[in-house]
Amino acid sequence: MRNLFDDLPHDLPEELTDVLAEGERVRIERIVSTGQASPENFWYDQPQAEWVVLLAGSATLRLEGEPQPLTLQPGDHLLLPAGRRHRVERTSPDEPTVWLCVFFDESARTTE
Amino acid sequence: MRNLFDDLPHDLPEELTDVLAEGERVRIERIVSTGQASPENFWYDQPQAEWVVLLAGSATLRLEGEPQPLTLQPGDHLLLPAGRRHRVERTSPDEPTVWLCVFFDESARTTE
Repeated sequence: MRNLFDDLPHDLPEELTDVLAEGERVRIERIVSTGQASPENFWYDQPQAEWVVLLAGSATLRLEGEPQPLTLQPGDHLLLPAGRRHRVERTSPDEPTVWLCVFFDESARTTE
Repeated sequence: MRNLFDDLPHDLPEELTDVLAEGERVRIERIVSTGQASPENFWYDQPQAEWVVLLAGSATLRLEGEPQPLTLQPGDHLLLPAGRRHRVERTSPDEPTVWLCVFFDESARTTE
């Protein structure tokens, strides 16, 4: 059995991504940041939906078109639909920030 | 934005399940337990894989065929493949136990 908070690095040259589980068009990742942010003018634009929860540290996330960024504390979670452009403006420089991300295909729309 | 630890109930008549996100054959749930355990001789036997992490409280999980149960503390996570029978032997009676569960289809086996 593994623990999300074991052996957290404190000074990474870049974010550390571990795939925790993977299935049919779903992927669960732990991402550890130690002060990293998205490059200037870079936006994530992903073909899958992403449900993300911050579990340690803190971060500031910007969603394209939103006037205010979101500040995430442990336990804060949100759903980023496929194609929802977003960027990480800041992660805590003082402690590791631990993200848990689930990438998945959104449901096919049905008319039932 | 929601927080996994907001407004945690402390005394539930039964476990509380919230679906946080859902997609094409994937479902992300928060489950809060306040001392509940599986009924005697009951085993979960699920058609989908389940990745589970305990985020608050503590619990004891038993996997069928394993001599020793697993004691989970915050951050402990494991993958239960489809059909892996398991039961919850105990959750903390003193504080809410928060589980995050991702149910999903395992990858189709390919011979590539």
